[in-house]
Amino acid sequence: IYTMGVDIGSTASKGVILEDGKKVIATAVVDVGAGTSGPSRVIKMVLENANLKIEDIKFIMATGYGRNSLEEADFQMSELSCHAKGAYFLFPNVHTIIDIGGQDAKALKIGDGGILENFVMNDKCAAGTGRFLDVIARVLEVGVGDLEALDAKATKDVTISSTCTVFAESEVISQLAKGTKIEDIVKGIHYSIASRVGSLAKRVGLKDDVVFTGGVALNKGMVRALEANLGYKVHTSPMCQLNGALGAALFGYQKYKTALRKEKVAN
Amino acid sequence: IYTMGVDIGSTASKGVILEDGKKVIATAVVDVGAGTSGPSRVIKMVLENANLKIEDIKFIMATGYGRNSLEEADFQMSELSCHAKGAYFLFPNVHTIIDIGGQDAKALKIGDGGILENFVMNDKCAAGTGRFLDVIARVLEVGVGDLEALDAKATKDVTISSTCTVFAESEVISQLAKGTKIEDIVKGIHYSIASRVGSLAKRVGLKDDVVFTGGVALNKGMVRALEANLGYKVHTSPMCQLNGALGAALFGYQKYKTALRKEKVAN
Ligand code: SF4
Repeated sequence: IYTMGVDIGSTASKGVILEDGKKVIATAVVDVGAGTSGPSRVIKMVLENANLKIEDIKFIMATGYGRNSLEEADFQMSELSCHAKGAYFLFPNVHTIIDIGGQDAKALKIGDGGILENFVMNDKCAAGTGRFLDVIARVLEVGVGDLEALDAKATKDVTISSTCTVFAESEVISQLAKGTKIEDIVKGIHYSIASRVGSLAKRVGLKDDVVFTGGVALNKGMVRALEANLGYKVHTSPMCQLNGALGAALFGYQKYKTALRKEKVAN
Repeated sequence: IYTMGVDIGSTASKGVILEDGKKVIATAVVDVGAGTSGPSRVIKMVLENANLKIEDIKFIMATGYGRNSLEEADFQMSELSCHAKGAYFLFPNVHTIIDIGGQDAKALKIGDGGILENFVMNDKCAAGTGRFLDVIARVLEVGVGDLEALDAKATKDVTISSTCTVFAESEVISQLAKGTKIEDIVKGIHYSIASRVGSLAKRVGLKDDVVFTGGVALNKGMVRALEANLGYKVHTSPMCQLNGALGAALFGYQKYKTALRKEKVAN
Protein backbone atom coordinates (compact mmCIF):
# COMPACT_ATOMS: atom_id res chain seq x y z
CA ILE A 1 0.00 0.00 0.00
CA TYR A 2 1.47 3.32 -1.10
CA THR A 3 0.50 6.65 0.41
CA MET A 4 1.79 10.10 -0.46
CA GLY A 5 2.31 13.17 1.70
CA VAL A 6 2.69 16.55 0.03
CA ASP A 7 3.82 19.56 2.07
CA ILE A 8 3.28 22.86 0.28
CA GLY A 9 5.23 25.53 2.10
CA SER A 10 5.66 29.20 1.28
CA THR A 11 9.00 28.66 -0.45
CA ALA A 12 9.24 24.92 -1.25
CA SER A 13 7.05 21.92 -2.07
CA LYS A 14 7.96 18.54 -0.63
CA GLY A 15 6.68 15.04 -1.36
CA VAL A 16 7.13 11.65 0.29
CA ILE A 17 5.85 8.23 -0.76
CA LEU A 18 5.49 5.64 1.96
CA GLU A 19 5.06 1.89 1.66
CA ASP A 20 2.69 0.25 4.14
CA GLY A 21 2.93 3.22 6.47
CA LYS A 22 6.45 2.18 7.42
CA LYS A 23 9.03 2.66 4.71
CA VAL A 24 9.97 5.82 2.84
CA ILE A 25 10.46 4.73 -0.76
CA ALA A 26 10.78 8.10 -2.47
CA THR A 27 11.10 11.80 -1.71
CA ALA A 28 11.23 15.00 -3.73
CA VAL A 29 11.73 18.70 -3.08
CA VAL A 30 10.94 21.54 -5.47
CA ASP A 31 12.23 24.98 -4.51
CA VAL A 32 8.99 26.84 -5.08
CA GLY A 33 5.90 26.62 -2.95
CA ALA A 34 2.27 27.67 -2.75
CA GLY A 35 0.81 29.46 -5.75
CA THR A 36 3.38 28.11 -8.24
CA SER A 37 3.86 24.97 -10.32
CA GLY A 38 5.81 23.52 -7.36
CA PRO A 39 3.03 21.35 -5.92
CA SER A 40 2.17 19.55 -9.15
CA ARG A 41 5.84 19.24 -10.09
CA VAL A 42 6.73 17.69 -6.76
CA ILE A 43 3.99 15.08 -7.18
CA LYS A 44 5.32 14.19 -10.63
CA MET A 45 8.89 14.02 -9.32
CA VAL A 46 8.20 11.86 -6.30
CA LEU A 47 6.19 9.43 -8.45
CA GLU A 48 9.08 9.22 -10.91
CA ASN A 49 11.55 8.67 -8.08
CA ALA A 50 9.38 5.81 -6.80
CA ASN A 51 8.79 4.52 -10.30
CA LEU A 52 5.05 4.60 -9.66
CA LYS A 53 1.95 6.06 -11.30
CA ILE A 54 -0.58 8.24 -9.53
CA GLU A 55 -3.09 5.33 -9.72
CA ASP A 56 -0.76 3.27 -7.54
CA ILE A 57 -1.15 5.72 -4.66
CA LYS A 58 -4.00 4.83 -2.32
CA PHE A 59 -4.14 8.12 -0.47
CA ILE A 60 -2.68 11.59 -0.98
CA MET A 61 -2.56 13.80 2.09
CA ALA A 62 -1.75 17.49 1.69
CA THR A 63 -0.31 19.71 4.39
CA GLY A 64 1.44 23.06 4.74
CA TYR A 65 0.49 26.63 4.00
CA GLY A 66 -0.79 25.84 0.49
CA ARG A 67 -2.51 22.54 1.29
CA ASN A 68 -6.02 23.65 0.37
CA SER A 69 -5.20 24.38 -3.24
CA LEU A 70 -3.89 20.90 -4.07
CA GLU A 71 -6.53 19.32 -6.32
CA GLU A 72 -4.89 15.89 -6.26
CA ALA A 73 -5.23 15.60 -2.49
CA ASP A 74 -7.72 13.23 -0.85
CA PHE A 75 -7.52 15.16 2.40
CA GLN A 76 -5.75 18.06 4.11
CA MET A 77 -4.21 18.26 7.56
CA SER A 78 -2.53 21.03 9.55
CA GLU A 79 1.24 21.09 9.26
CA LEU A 80 1.55 21.12 13.05
CA SER A 81 0.03 17.65 13.38
CA CYS A 82 2.05 16.41 10.41
CA HIS A 83 5.29 17.75 11.88
CA ALA A 84 4.58 16.02 15.17
CA LYS A 85 3.79 12.77 13.36
CA GLY A 86 6.85 12.91 11.13
CA ALA A 87 9.29 13.75 13.91
CA TYR A 88 7.89 10.99 16.13
CA PHE A 89 8.43 8.51 13.29
CA LEU A 90 12.07 9.60 12.92
CA PHE A 91 12.81 10.15 16.63
CA PRO A 92 10.44 8.16 18.85
CA ASN A 93 11.74 10.00 21.92
CA VAL A 94 11.00 13.49 20.53
CA HIS A 95 9.53 15.99 23.02
CA THR A 96 10.41 19.32 21.39
CA ILE A 97 10.38 20.19 17.71
CA ILE A 98 11.95 23.35 16.37
CA ASP A 99 10.93 24.01 12.78
CA ILE A 100 12.43 26.82 10.74
CA GLY A 101 10.73 27.25 7.40
CA GLY A 102 11.21 29.70 4.59
CA GLN A 103 8.99 32.37 6.14
CA ASP A 104 8.12 31.15 9.60
CA ALA A 105 9.46 29.42 12.67
CA LYS A 106 7.68 27.33 15.23
CA ALA A 107 8.35 25.32 18.34
CA LEU A 108 6.17 22.33 19.20
CA LYS A 109 5.82 20.54 22.50
CA ILE A 110 5.29 16.83 21.94
CA GLY A 111 3.94 14.45 24.55
CA ASP A 112 4.79 10.76 24.88
CA GLY A 113 3.54 8.86 21.84
CA GLY A 114 4.08 11.80 19.51
CA ILE A 115 0.99 13.79 20.54
CA LEU A 116 1.11 17.53 19.86
CA GLU A 117 0.58 19.28 23.22
CA ASN A 118 1.36 22.89 22.52
CA PHE A 119 3.09 25.18 20.06
CA VAL A 120 4.25 28.73 19.50
CA MET A 121 4.76 30.21 16.11
CA ASN A 122 6.19 33.28 14.43
CA ASP A 123 4.98 34.01 10.93
CA LYS A 124 4.78 37.79 11.20
CA CYS A 125 8.46 38.71 11.44
CA ALA A 126 11.18 37.61 9.04
CA ALA A 127 13.78 37.50 11.81
CA GLY A 128 14.47 33.94 12.87
CA THR A 129 13.14 32.44 9.63
CA GLY A 130 14.71 31.18 6.44
CA ARG A 131 14.02 34.56 4.90
CA PHE A 132 16.52 36.14 7.26
CA LEU A 133 19.22 33.83 5.88
CA ASP A 134 18.18 34.65 2.30
CA VAL A 135 18.50 38.37 2.93
CA ILE A 136 21.89 38.05 4.61
CA ALA A 137 23.26 35.61 2.03
CA ARG A 138 22.33 38.11 -0.67
CA VAL A 139 24.20 40.91 1.12
CA LEU A 140 27.21 38.65 1.60
CA GLU A 141 26.96 37.64 -2.06
CA VAL A 142 27.02 33.95 -1.23
CA GLY A 143 24.43 31.23 -1.74
CA VAL A 144 22.28 30.07 1.16
CA GLY A 145 23.81 26.65 0.53
CA ASP A 146 27.27 28.06 1.27
CA LEU A 147 26.42 29.25 4.76
CA GLU A 148 27.11 25.93 6.44
CA ALA A 149 30.64 25.65 5.06
CA LEU A 150 31.38 29.30 5.86
CA ASP A 151 30.17 28.89 9.44
CA ALA A 152 32.50 25.92 9.89
CA LYS A 153 35.48 28.17 9.08
CA ALA A 154 34.60 30.87 11.61
CA THR A 155 37.38 31.72 14.06
CA LYS A 156 35.99 34.77 15.85
CA ASP A 157 32.74 35.58 17.61
CA VAL A 158 30.83 38.40 15.97
CA THR A 159 27.66 39.62 17.65
CA ILE A 160 24.86 40.84 15.43
CA SER A 161 22.95 42.90 17.94
CA SER A 162 19.85 43.74 15.89
CA THR A 163 17.17 41.11 15.81
CA CYS A 164 15.37 42.84 12.95
CA THR A 165 16.33 41.49 9.53
CA VAL A 166 16.51 44.99 8.07
CA PHE A 167 18.73 46.40 10.82
CA ALA A 168 20.84 43.21 10.90
CA GLU A 169 21.42 43.66 7.16
CA SER A 170 22.90 47.11 7.89
CA GLU A 171 25.02 45.67 10.67
CA VAL A 172 26.38 43.07 8.29
CA ILE A 173 27.24 45.79 5.78
CA SER A 174 29.16 47.72 8.48
CA GLN A 175 30.94 44.55 9.56
CA LEU A 176 32.01 43.93 5.97
CA ALA A 177 33.20 47.54 5.72
CA LYS A 178 35.24 47.02 8.91
CA GLY A 179 36.92 44.04 7.29
CA THR A 180 35.24 41.36 9.41
CA LYS A 181 35.55 37.97 7.73
CA ILE A 182 32.45 36.61 6.03
CA GLU A 183 32.71 33.29 7.89
CA ASP A 184 32.64 35.07 11.25
CA ILE A 185 29.63 37.14 10.18
CA VAL A 186 27.82 34.00 9.05
CA LYS A 187 28.37 32.37 12.42
CA GLY A 188 27.08 35.54 14.11
CA ILE A 189 23.97 35.40 11.92
CA HIS A 190 23.35 31.77 12.85
CA TYR A 191 23.64 32.70 16.52
CA SER A 192 21.19 35.55 16.00
CA ILE A 193 18.58 33.21 14.50
CA ALA A 194 19.26 30.65 17.22
CA SER A 195 18.61 33.24 19.89
CA ARG A 196 15.35 34.30 18.29
CA VAL A 197 14.10 30.76 17.66
CA GLY A 198 15.56 29.50 20.92
CA SER A 199 13.25 31.84 22.79
CA LEU A 200 10.25 30.33 21.00
CA ALA A 201 11.44 26.87 22.05
CA LYS A 202 11.94 27.98 25.65
CA ARG A 203 8.36 29.26 25.66
CA VAL A 204 6.93 25.82 24.87
CA GLY A 205 9.45 24.18 27.20
CA LEU A 206 12.50 22.13 26.23
CA LYS A 207 12.75 18.41 26.77
CA ASP A 208 14.94 15.75 25.13
CA ASP A 209 14.89 14.77 22.33
CA VAL A 210 14.97 18.18 20.74
CA VAL A 211 14.42 17.70 17.00
CA PHE A 212 15.16 20.41 14.46
CA THR A 213 13.18 20.30 11.20
CA GLY A 214 12.52 22.45 8.14
CA GLY A 215 14.83 23.33 5.28
CA VAL A 216 17.09 25.43 7.52
CA ALA A 217 17.86 22.33 9.61
CA LEU A 218 20.01 21.02 6.74
CA ASN A 219 22.53 23.73 7.71
CA LYS A 220 24.86 22.25 10.35
CA GLY A 221 26.00 25.73 11.34
CA MET A 222 22.43 26.45 12.46
CA VAL A 223 22.37 23.14 14.34
CA ARG A 224 25.53 24.09 16.25
CA ALA A 225 24.19 27.58 16.96
CA LEU A 226 20.95 26.14 18.34
CA GLU A 227 22.85 23.66 20.52
CA ALA A 228 24.97 26.50 21.90
CA ASN A 229 21.87 28.60 22.56
CA LEU A 230 19.70 25.88 24.11
CA GLY A 231 22.27 23.74 25.90
CA TYR A 232 20.58 20.67 24.46
CA LYS A 233 21.65 18.13 21.88
CA VAL A 234 19.74 19.04 18.71
CA HIS A 235 18.75 16.10 16.50
CA THR A 236 18.35 16.38 12.76
CA SER A 237 17.99 13.95 9.92
CA PRO A 238 18.50 14.19 6.17
CA MET A 239 14.69 13.95 6.14
CA CYS A 240 14.29 17.15 8.20
CA GLN A 241 12.98 19.24 5.32
CA LEU A 242 10.57 16.42 4.42
CA ASN A 243 9.25 16.02 7.94
CA GLY A 244 5.83 17.58 7.25
CA ALA A 245 5.35 15.56 4.06
CA LEU A 246 6.41 12.41 5.91
CA GLY A 247 3.86 13.08 8.63
CA ALA A 248 1.23 13.66 5.97
CA ALA A 249 2.05 10.34 4.27
CA LEU A 250 1.81 8.59 7.67
CA PHE A 251 -1.60 10.16 8.34
CA GLY A 252 -2.59 9.25 4.78
CA TYR A 253 -1.86 5.62 5.56
CA GLN A 254 -3.96 5.77 8.75
CA LYS A 255 -6.86 7.41 6.90
CA TYR A 256 -6.73 4.81 4.16
CA LYS A 257 -6.77 1.93 6.65
CA THR A 258 -9.69 3.44 8.54
CA ALA A 259 -11.65 3.96 5.32
CA LEU A 260 -10.90 0.35 4.30
CA ARG A 261 -12.12 -0.97 7.64
CA LYS A 262 -15.35 1.07 7.40
CA GLU A 263 -15.92 -0.27 3.90
CA LYS A 264 -15.52 -3.84 5.09
CA VAL A 265 -17.99 -3.26 7.92
CA ALA A 266 -20.47 -1.71 5.48
CA ASN A 267 -20.31 -4.63 3.05
CA ILE B 1 21.78 85.79 22.98
CA TYR B 2 22.23 82.94 20.52
CA THR B 3 21.87 79.28 21.45
CA MET B 4 22.23 76.25 19.23
CA GLY B 5 20.51 72.88 19.34
CA VAL B 6 22.02 69.96 17.46
CA ASP B 7 20.04 66.75 17.00
CA ILE B 8 22.15 63.83 15.83
CA GLY B 9 19.87 61.07 14.65
CA SER B 10 20.69 57.72 13.11
CA THR B 11 20.20 58.96 9.55
CA ALA B 12 20.35 62.78 9.69
CA SER B 13 21.91 65.64 11.66
CA LYS B 14 19.85 68.72 12.35
CA GLY B 15 20.79 72.13 13.73
CA VAL B 16 18.82 75.16 14.91
CA ILE B 17 20.03 78.56 16.10
CA LEU B 18 17.71 80.51 18.36
CA GLU B 19 17.80 84.17 19.31
CA ASP B 20 16.90 85.02 22.90
CA GLY B 21 15.14 81.69 23.34
CA LYS B 22 12.31 82.89 21.13
CA LYS B 23 13.16 83.25 17.48
CA VAL B 24 14.53 80.65 15.09
CA ILE B 25 17.11 82.48 12.99
CA ALA B 26 18.71 79.57 11.15
CA THR B 27 18.28 75.85 10.55
CA ALA B 28 20.23 73.16 8.74
CA VAL B 29 19.81 69.49 7.92
CA VAL B 30 22.52 67.09 6.74
CA ASP B 31 21.38 63.71 5.48
CA VAL B 32 23.85 61.65 7.48
CA GLY B 33 23.76 61.10 11.20
CA ALA B 34 25.72 59.63 14.09
CA GLY B 35 29.21 58.34 13.35
CA THR B 36 29.67 60.42 10.19
CA SER B 37 30.81 63.94 9.32
CA GLY B 38 27.14 64.98 9.57
CA PRO B 39 27.24 66.51 13.06
CA SER B 40 30.20 68.83 12.43
CA ARG B 41 28.91 69.70 8.95
CA VAL B 42 25.50 70.64 10.31
CA ILE B 43 27.10 72.98 12.85
CA LYS B 44 29.11 74.66 10.12
CA MET B 45 26.03 74.95 7.91
CA VAL B 46 23.70 76.38 10.50
CA LEU B 47 26.32 78.96 11.51
CA GLU B 48 26.72 79.98 7.87
CA ASN B 49 22.96 80.21 7.43
CA ALA B 50 22.81 82.49 10.48
CA ASN B 51 25.88 84.39 9.38
CA LEU B 52 27.43 83.78 12.78
CA LYS B 53 30.67 82.34 14.18
CA ILE B 54 30.84 79.60 16.77
CA GLU B 55 32.09 82.19 19.31
CA ASP B 56 28.76 84.02 18.97
CA ILE B 57 26.87 81.03 20.31
CA LYS B 58 26.42 81.10 24.08
CA PHE B 59 25.34 77.52 24.53
CA ILE B 60 25.31 74.40 22.33
CA MET B 61 22.95 71.65 23.42
CA ALA B 62 23.22 68.22 21.79
CA THR B 63 20.42 65.68 21.60
CA GLY B 64 19.51 62.54 19.67
CA TYR B 65 21.03 59.12 19.33
CA GLY B 66 24.58 60.43 18.69
CA ARG B 67 24.51 63.30 21.21
CA ASN B 68 27.33 62.00 23.38
CA SER B 69 29.93 62.11 20.65
CA LEU B 70 29.53 65.81 19.85
CA GLU B 71 32.68 67.51 21.14
CA GLU B 72 31.36 71.01 20.50
CA ALA B 73 28.40 70.52 22.84
CA ASP B 74 28.18 72.21 26.24
CA PHE B 75 25.59 69.74 27.41
CA GLN B 76 23.50 66.77 26.27
CA MET B 77 19.83 66.02 26.78
CA SER B 78 17.54 63.13 25.87
CA GLU B 79 15.69 63.55 22.60
CA LEU B 80 12.41 62.79 24.36
CA SER B 81 12.61 65.95 26.47
CA CYS B 82 13.79 67.97 23.49
CA HIS B 83 10.93 66.72 21.34
CA ALA B 84 8.43 67.68 24.01
CA LYS B 85 10.02 71.11 24.34
CA GLY B 86 10.16 71.77 20.60
CA ALA B 87 6.61 70.66 19.90
CA TYR B 88 5.28 72.75 22.78
CA PHE B 89 7.04 75.79 21.34
CA LEU B 90 5.45 75.20 17.91
CA PHE B 91 2.03 74.00 19.16
CA PRO B 92 1.29 75.25 22.71
CA ASN B 93 -1.75 72.99 22.88
CA VAL B 94 0.18 69.79 22.05
CA HIS B 95 -0.79 66.69 24.07
CA THR B 96 0.41 63.87 21.81
CA ILE B 97 3.56 63.75 19.71
CA ILE B 98 4.14 61.11 17.08
CA ASP B 99 7.72 61.08 15.89
CA ILE B 100 8.89 58.91 13.02
CA GLY B 101 12.63 58.95 12.57
CA GLY B 102 14.95 57.17 10.19
CA GLN B 103 15.19 54.05 12.32
CA ASP B 104 12.68 54.45 15.11
CA ALA B 105 9.23 55.67 15.96
CA LYS B 106 7.86 57.01 19.20
CA ALA B 107 4.72 58.41 20.70
CA LEU B 108 4.87 60.91 23.56
CA LYS B 109 2.17 61.96 25.94
CA ILE B 110 2.52 65.63 26.84
CA GLY B 111 0.87 67.29 29.81
CA ASP B 112 -0.27 70.90 29.99
CA GLY B 113 2.71 73.22 29.81
CA GLY B 114 4.68 70.88 27.56
CA ILE B 115 5.73 68.40 30.25
CA LEU B 116 6.65 64.90 29.04
CA GLU B 117 4.37 62.49 30.89
CA ASN B 118 4.87 59.17 29.16
CA PHE B 119 6.20 57.64 25.99
CA VAL B 120 6.40 54.41 24.01
CA MET B 121 9.05 53.69 21.49
CA ASN B 122 9.99 51.21 18.81
CA ASP B 123 13.62 51.06 17.83
CA LYS B 124 13.92 47.30 17.38
CA CYS B 125 11.77 46.74 14.29
CA ALA B 126 12.14 48.59 10.99
CA ALA B 127 8.39 48.43 10.34
CA GLY B 128 6.76 51.77 11.04
CA THR B 129 10.01 53.73 10.72
CA GLY B 130 11.64 55.76 7.97
CA ARG B 131 13.66 52.70 7.08
CA PHE B 132 10.51 50.97 5.94
CA LEU B 133 9.90 53.77 3.44
CA ASP B 134 13.53 53.58 2.25
CA VAL B 135 13.22 49.86 1.57
CA ILE B 136 9.92 50.22 -0.26
CA ALA B 137 11.04 53.26 -2.27
CA ARG B 138 14.07 51.25 -3.44
CA VAL B 139 11.84 48.38 -4.60
CA LEU B 140 9.53 50.81 -6.38
CA GLU B 141 12.59 52.50 -7.91
CA VAL B 142 11.47 55.94 -6.76
CA GLY B 143 13.03 58.41 -4.35
CA VAL B 144 11.72 58.73 -0.81
CA GLY B 145 11.01 62.35 -1.71
CA ASP B 146 8.63 61.21 -4.48
CA LEU B 147 6.35 59.25 -2.17
CA GLU B 148 4.21 62.24 -1.18
CA ALA B 149 3.37 63.16 -4.78
CA LEU B 150 2.69 59.53 -5.71
CA ASP B 151 0.37 59.08 -2.72
CA ALA B 152 -1.61 62.14 -3.82
CA LYS B 153 -2.34 60.43 -7.16
CA ALA B 154 -3.67 57.19 -5.64
CA THR B 155 -7.14 56.18 -6.81
CA LYS B 156 -7.52 52.70 -5.35
CA ASP B 157 -7.09 51.21 -1.89
CA VAL B 158 -4.36 48.58 -1.74
CA THR B 159 -3.87 46.71 1.51
CA ILE B 160 -0.36 45.67 2.41
CA SER B 161 -1.16 42.95 4.90
CA SER B 162 2.35 42.20 6.21
CA THR B 163 3.62 44.47 8.92
CA CYS B 164 7.15 43.17 8.53
CA THR B 165 9.30 45.27 6.21
CA VAL B 166 10.79 42.17 4.60
CA PHE B 167 7.44 40.50 3.94
CA ALA B 168 5.86 43.81 2.86
CA GLU B 169 8.68 44.18 0.33
CA SER B 170 7.64 40.85 -1.21
CA GLU B 171 4.01 41.92 -1.20
CA VAL B 172 4.94 45.08 -3.06
CA ILE B 173 6.83 43.03 -5.64
CA SER B 174 3.74 40.82 -6.19
CA GLN B 175 1.53 43.89 -6.44
CA LEU B 176 3.84 45.32 -9.11
CA ALA B 177 3.77 41.99 -10.94
CA LYS B 178 -0.05 42.06 -10.83
CA GLY B 179 0.04 45.49 -12.47
CA THR B 180 -1.07 47.49 -9.42
CA LYS B 181 -0.22 51.16 -9.89
CA ILE B 182 2.75 52.49 -7.96
CA GLU B 183 0.72 55.37 -6.53
CA ASP B 184 -1.84 52.97 -5.04
CA ILE B 185 0.93 50.84 -3.56
CA VAL B 186 2.54 53.92 -2.02
CA LYS B 187 -0.72 54.90 -0.36
CA GLY B 188 -1.07 51.33 0.95
CA ILE B 189 2.44 51.56 2.39
CA HIS B 190 1.64 54.85 4.13
CA TYR B 191 -1.45 53.24 5.63
CA SER B 192 0.63 50.30 6.80
CA ILE B 193 3.06 52.61 8.64
CA ALA B 194 0.17 54.64 10.03
CA SER B 195 -1.40 51.51 11.45
CA ARG B 196 1.84 50.45 13.10
CA VAL B 197 2.69 53.88 14.50
CA GLY B 198 -0.95 54.61 15.28
CA SER B 199 -0.98 51.71 17.69
CA LEU B 200 2.01 53.22 19.53
CA ALA B 201 0.11 56.50 19.80
CA LYS B 202 -3.02 54.75 21.06
CA ARG B 203 -0.92 53.13 23.76
CA VAL B 204 0.15 56.48 25.23
CA GLY B 205 -3.34 57.88 24.69
CA LEU B 206 -4.45 60.40 22.09
CA LYS B 207 -5.42 63.94 22.90
CA ASP B 208 -5.57 67.10 20.77
CA ASP B 209 -3.33 68.61 19.53
CA VAL B 210 -1.70 65.61 17.93
CA VAL B 211 1.64 66.74 16.51
CA PHE B 212 3.62 64.69 14.02
CA THR B 213 7.40 65.25 13.95
CA GLY B 214 10.52 63.70 12.45
CA GLY B 215 11.69 63.64 8.86
CA VAL B 216 8.82 61.40 7.76
CA ALA B 217 6.32 64.09 8.85
CA LEU B 218 7.37 66.17 5.83
CA ASN B 219 5.47 63.62 3.71
CA LYS B 220 1.86 64.79 3.48
CA GLY B 221 0.77 61.34 2.35
CA MET B 222 1.90 60.02 5.73
CA VAL B 223 0.02 62.85 7.46
CA ARG B 224 -3.21 61.90 5.66
CA ALA B 225 -2.67 58.21 6.44
CA LEU B 226 -2.18 58.99 10.14
CA GLU B 227 -5.29 61.18 10.22
CA ALA B 228 -7.29 58.36 8.62
CA ASN B 229 -5.91 55.87 11.11
CA LEU B 230 -6.27 57.96 14.26
CA GLY B 231 -9.40 59.96 13.51
CA TYR B 232 -7.60 63.07 14.77
CA LYS B 233 -6.34 66.16 13.02
CA VAL B 234 -2.58 65.70 12.75
CA HIS B 235 -0.52 68.89 13.00
CA THR B 236 2.82 69.31 11.30
CA SER B 237 5.10 72.20 10.58
CA PRO B 238 7.95 72.76 8.13
CA MET B 239 10.07 72.60 11.31
CA CYS B 240 8.91 69.04 12.09
CA GLN B 241 12.24 67.43 11.21
CA LEU B 242 14.02 70.07 13.31
CA ASN B 243 11.81 69.62 16.33
CA GLY B 244 14.43 67.86 18.47
CA ALA B 245 17.11 70.42 17.59
CA LEU B 246 14.67 73.24 18.31
CA GLY B 247 13.91 71.76 21.74
CA ALA B 248 17.63 71.45 22.39
CA ALA B 249 18.22 75.10 21.48
CA LEU B 250 15.37 76.10 23.82
CA PHE B 251 16.86 74.06 26.67
CA GLY B 252 20.24 75.55 25.80
CA TYR B 253 18.80 79.01 26.34
CA GLN B 254 17.35 77.98 29.72
CA LYS B 255 20.66 76.44 30.80
CA TYR B 256 22.56 79.54 29.77
CA LYS B 257 20.21 81.84 31.70
CA THR B 258 20.42 79.67 34.81
CA ALA B 259 24.22 79.63 34.63
CA LEU B 260 24.25 83.40 34.23
CA ARG B 261 22.00 83.88 37.24
CA LYS B 262 24.19 81.59 39.37
CA GLU B 263 27.24 83.51 38.26
CA LYS B 264 25.61 86.80 39.29
CA VAL B 265 24.68 85.38 42.67
CA ALA B 266 28.24 84.11 43.15
CA ASN B 267 29.80 87.50 42.37
S1 SF4 C 1 11.74 43.22 13.38
FE1 SF4 C 1 12.40 43.48 11.24
S2 SF4 C 1 12.16 41.45 10.42
FE2 SF4 C 1 10.87 41.55 12.24
S3 SF4 C 1 8.85 42.35 11.70
FE3 SF4 C 1 10.08 44.09 12.15
S4 SF4 C 1 10.87 44.71 10.16
FE4 SF4 C 1 10.29 42.58 9.97
